[in-house]
Amino acid sequence: MTSKLKIGIVGATGYTGVELLRLLAKHPHAEVTAITSRGEAGVHIADYFPSLRGVYDLTFQDPEQAQLNQCDVVFFATPHGVAMRDAPALLEQGVRVIDLSADFRIQDVPTWEKWYGLPFTAQAALQEAVYGLCELNRAQIQQARLVANPGCYPTCVSLPLIPLLQQQALLPNMPIIADCKSGVSGAGRKAVVGTLLCEAGDNFKAYGVAGHRHLPEIKQTIQSLQHEVAQQFIFVPHLTPMIRGMHATTYVHLKDGVQPHDLLQQYYANSLFVDVMPMGSTPETRSVRGANVCRIAVQRAPEYTGNVWILLSVQDNLVKGAAGQAVQNMNIMFDLPETAGLDNVALLP
Amino acid sequence: MTSKLKIGIVGATGYTGVELLRLLAKHPHAEVTAITSRGEAGVHIADYFPSLRGVYDLTFQDPEQAQLNQCDVVFFATPHGVAMRDAPALLEQGVRVIDLSADFRIQDVPTWEKWYGLPFTAQAALQEAVYGLCELNRAQIQQARLVANPGCYPTCVSLPLIPLLQQQALLPNMPIIADCKSGVSGAGRKAVVGTLLCEAGDNFKAYGVAGHRHLPEIKQTIQSLQHEVAQQFIFVPHLTPMIRGMHATTYVHLKDGVQPHDLLQQYYANSLFVDVMPMGSTPETRSVRGANVCRIAVQRAPEYTGNVWILLSVQDNLVKGAAGQAVQNMNIMFDLPETAGLDNVALLP
Amino acid sequence: MTSKLKIGIVGATGYTGVELLRLLAKHPHAEVTAITSRGEAGVHIADYFPSLRGVYDLTFQDPEQAQLNQCDVVFFATPHGVAMRDAPALLEQGVRVIDLSADFRIQDVPTWEKWYGLPFTAQAALQEAVYGLCELNRAQIQQARLVANPGCYPTCVSLPLIPLLQQQALLPNMPIIADCKSGVSGAGRKAVVGTLLCEAGDNFKAYGVAGHRHLPEIKQTIQSLQHEVAQQFIFVPHLTPMIRGMHATTYVHLKDGVQPHDLLQQYYANSLFVDVMPMGSTPETRSVRGANVCRIAVQRAPEYTGNVWILLSVQDNLVKGAAGQAVQNMNIMFDLPETAGLDNVALLP
Amino acid sequence: MTSKLKIGIVGATGYTGVELLRLLAKHPHAEVTAITSRGEAGVHIADYFPSLRGVYDLTFQDPEQAQLNQCDVVFFATPHGVAMRDAPALLEQGVRVIDLSADFRIQDVPTWEKWYGLPFTAQAALQEAVYGLCELNRAQIQQARLVANPGCYPTCVSLPLIPLLQQQALLPNMPIIADCKSGVSGAGRKAVVGTLLCEAGDNFKAYGVAGHRHLPEIKQTIQSLQHEVAQQFIFVPHLTPMIRGMHATTYVHLKDGVQPHDLLQQYYANSLFVDVMPMGSTPETRSVRGANVCRIAVQRAPEYTGNVWILLSVQDNLVKGAAGQAVQNMNIMFDLPETAGLDNVALLP
Repeated sequence: MTSKLKIGIVGATGYTGVELLRLLAKHPHAEVTAITSRGEAGVHIADYFPSLRGVYDLTFQDPEQAQLNQCDVVFFATPHGVAMRDAPALLEQGVRVIDLSADFRIQDVPTWEKWYGLPFTAQAALQEAVYGLCELNRAQIQQARLVANPGCYPTCVSLPLIPLLQQQALLPNMPIIADCKSGVSGAGRKAVVGTLLCEAGDNFKAYGVAGHRHLPEIKQTIQSLQHEVAQQFIFVPHLTPMIRGMHATTYVHLKDGVQPHDLLQQYYANSLFVDVMPMGSTPETRSVRGANVCRIAVQRAPEYTGNVWILLSVQDNLVKGAAGQAVQNMNIMFDLPETAGLDNVALLP
Repeated sequence: MTSKLKIGIVGATGYTGVELLRLLAKHPHAEVTAITSRGEAGVHIADYFPSLRGVYDLTFQDPEQAQLNQCDVVFFATPHGVAMRDAPALLEQGVRVIDLSADFRIQDVPTWEKWYGLPFTAQAALQEAVYGLCELNRAQIQQARLVANPGCYPTCVSLPLIPLLQQQALLPNMPIIADCKSGVSGAGRKAVVGTLLCEAGDNFKAYGVAGHRHLPEIKQTIQSLQHEVAQQFIFVPHLTPMIRGMHATTYVHLKDGVQPHDLLQQYYANSLFVDVMPMGSTPETRSVRGANVCRIAVQRAPEYTGNVWILLSVQDNLVKGAAGQAVQNMNIMFDLPETAGLDNVALLP
Repeated sequence: MTSKLKIGIVGATGYTGVELLRLLAKHPHAEVTAITSRGEAGVHIADYFPSLRGVYDLTFQDPEQAQLNQCDVVFFATPHGVAMRDAPALLEQGVRVIDLSADFRIQDVPTWEKWYGLPFTAQAALQEAVYGLCELNRAQIQQARLVANPGCYPTCVSLPLIPLLQQQALLPNMPIIADCKSGVSGAGRKAVVGTLLCEAGDNFKAYGVAGHRHLPEIKQTIQSLQHEVAQQFIFVPHLTPMIRGMHATTYVHLKDGVQPHDLLQQYYANSLFVDVMPMGSTPETRSVRGANVCRIAVQRAPEYTGNVWILLSVQDNLVKGAAGQAVQNMNIMFDLPETAGLDNVALLP
Repeated sequence: MTSKLKIGIVGATGYTGVELLRLLAKHPHAEVTAITSRGEAGVHIADYFPSLRGVYDLTFQDPEQAQLNQCDVVFFATPHGVAMRDAPALLEQGVRVIDLSADFRIQDVPTWEKWYGLPFTAQAALQEAVYGLCELNRAQIQQARLVANPGCYPTCVSLPLIPLLQQQALLPNMPIIADCKSGVSGAGRKAVVGTLLCEAGDNFKAYGVAGHRHLPEIKQTIQSLQHEVAQQFIFVPHLTPMIRGMHATTYVHLKDGVQPHDLLQQYYANSLFVDVMPMGSTPETRSVRGANVCRIAVQRAPEYTGNVWILLSVQDNLVKGAAGQAVQNMNIMFDLPETAGLDNVALLP
């Protein structure tokens, strides 16, 4: 291609924002041309994120001032409600949109409104929105103008389930339990007491047990693949005292004879970013720190009579669970090599 | 009482050893008179554990030199195999024994030998051993000469289950899934690569998925209370990057009409060390750091049709999960106030 | 004594507040009868600090409603400015006050106003305030009605220096450099971005290099003991990614022939809470986690011609550096055993 | 260039080894063709370092089997003593060597033997060895066949000092104090108790106060630039509870009129990997996590009469402090773009 894609990032002051900036800094076919923040307008990026000193020469702009319509694609790394309000105008002006917030993830409006507590106001855009789980919807993403980048938990939980659901391999009437653990960066860069180092450090707890917003999002994916088991899904997220990383432990009851390792290997045989590990492996979150990779292992429940399996999946919640998948979506949408900007190796230790 | 109990600790160089020493230092009715370690014989405790400088004036002795038969009670904080070999002689000499290792936890010898890989050689002692889960077996512990202190996972998983199992409240044919998370101190104070700060820090992973030694121990307790559901038990432990603390998330299918919160509140109404939290709570491991407390909360699985409940339980793996429960067992065995030496408040933050 | 001291705590929602509550819970001669918080009035302590469930049956009161004048002693665990405003009235009503904030630490009012940015309005109270560094001012503390509890850094830096300064052992014209490292709890329990786990975790940095409020406080102590070296004092604090703990590395040039280890051992020979370790030791912060102890070691600078020494001192910033020393001050003021409520052993690991 | 450099890594099982592999994986002009480990011979790299799954298809070889003489350059990531023994033969066969161990860092053999406790046996190689502090010795490195890659502390401490020493800017007879803090990965990937998560986590301590092996290495650099101040150097390293990152706080007395910020800015004006921050900045270790960057800030000691300055410098100890600088040395030696393989952005958070 002759020129680089021009990229805008709305709400670039959070963790998904800085992660987009990290990944896009070395993208061979794209460059960030505008970053916006209402609160930090006028601040140079190097004064805000010291890790980006010498990497970018960009200044936060007020969203109204930034000429986002000059961009080829705009990423929203904002709280919910913002993309719903601002994306439609960009789409009209021919700018493609990748929304890292939850606004366009749920196709059923009443469900969205119930879980997010806002009236939904972008019905037309929603109809064309594609759910950007790359390994599930690659074909639609290629055609999309608006991609709803999946939530971190939904990515980590869905990837090992997809090959099984697609084969109708789960037993009806038995639970699907996703016990998930997230690093604290999943909670964002907000000044709240609960994620202070002295509160979340050296501590482990569940949260959102009575209902987390990613529950309906995961159910929607399950329903689309093996309809009758969606109501059996149970999801409990936990906060683990680390910065990055997400681990899902998903317990499934499979129909007789189903071999989940085979199904996963077949489904992801050519996958660039999903690594199906050998039987008996136990993936570690640090093995994907900073990398756009989801590693999956499966093990059969020991000393148990039924065909019950334990699916173990890990990702960096900020990369494959957020900014990395967003760049992957961009690559697919613009027919770029899917690994462009995403080939860095995980940081271990 | 007129004089203090004399206590010996075999293998006092590990984390359960130093935790016993911490708790017993302020015990009003007991004093540690002998500590042994083959490797550290001759080393003063203050040179080994700097936290104990000025607290004890004790020197590690070779086990052969220490006159453990002068003690009223000896704690074994050793790898498995040691208590099995050395406890019988002490019992014969009238010394009571509390074994923090796994030697006397499993009543079925073939099962023990399968999981621990050693021939079992203390059959007579095993017959009188009492499984020291205080809240389950208090009456037998009062009479015991030999107590098998439970494992950390078994304590954390069993305490919320006991009131349900006792009422035969679990549905047959449905899984009981205990997804457990432990701080790294549970792995002990051995020089191994896997628990280095740079390996276990900022990382989360499952381990022992194919079978962990605490699986048969928990099953034994389940079997003793609601026999038909023991084979439905699934257990996956995980390592979480913190020093102390354990969290069990246990998923149970209950018979129609069973109210688990009521059952737990009734069972633990007068419990000194088990805290049943209000409905909807989410316990945190730090709320029990350093304290001999297990906190339990229950929540119903949201948007699920069956009577499925999530049991959340936390403990300090070194206290209620090891040394604290061992002291509690000693208090019960010697008819001391059950809280003696165990009334310190959790360290938060 | 026939009855327990009645204690009030103003501003009990922060880390020094909860630490006071932890220590006082087991104090044999005192009980907390009132806790205040404007923001949390009406909230039960057990709902606010889960570690205190079952320990206290107290509810936060609005400061105006709490009958603090019924207390024997009131602790202020508040931002600066509050004690200055409210302590004088309590003193008039015969209530003694221990102020954990900075209001009464600096005797020179212009200096205080320069560093704290407020007009100072409690001149009369200031005149009777005693600086509560117990190991320096025990005699005056015994007579005090108002004690200014020292800052965390000033305690950790001053304790190793006092025996040297008292003997005029430092060389004039050579620097005294205190390079200090604090756990994050020293920054308090405020909702700010800088102390989020994802900002302060896995990170190390200096802060306040251009001038930290504890600089004039330490200089005041130096000046009172060896006047001519106070202007040579350099202080750089750093934030270290842990919850509790403080380490001072202090570099001093001593006059010929001065043996600092001897001076320290003599000064602290009978000290209950200052541990002078053997020559060549290196204290660790975890050796005092949760305990009211400052451990000190000295080592001579290797391969250096002058009589330069490195003083290493550690404390738990929330205990000997704050709440523990405050309780120690209370014990001294009320002629109680100095270790009352302060005899718990450090939590290691 | 027409073909890629062929690289061998001796001792690739440690943290500097895996970091070399991470950086070299994306190097455009080099490829790793041999990795050796006596203990892990036959093990596939992907089974050893899960972060490298899908990145390399390499198997550890016994050093004797690996045809290292087919390589263009061999990195030694070994304990001291190995390169001294094996590098000379490689040099004879025309292979260039970059030694990440300490074997060739000290030019004075008796000094090396004193600090490392071995007889030194590679005198001829030593004479041609270049000390690979890139920003100091770039010209010699370009010509070198054997580069001694500097230690982590020496890099972090020397970089801010070099521009001052070169100008003879330090006062004689006044101390130069480097108070340094390292993440735990600096201690390597050895199975020892001291760096277990439960020992080094949530803890801070000094170590090596009586003399650390990096002391003579730093002194050698000082001596080469401003001879008379080398004996004034004091160095105290500390262990900080994080995985990666190093912070040096260096206190210097400068001659009247010296402006260190100006000197640093001039010296590093065109530097690719040394970032001189604006006056008053405080660098954070996380701002360079995973990146080959040293950030430096200077601040004048507040309220101090002399011209005393505080130099703050941070680096990732495994990158600019080890593997990154080694790759930088390779790039210089082979006339490749100096940033090749080293342009990744720091991982924050």
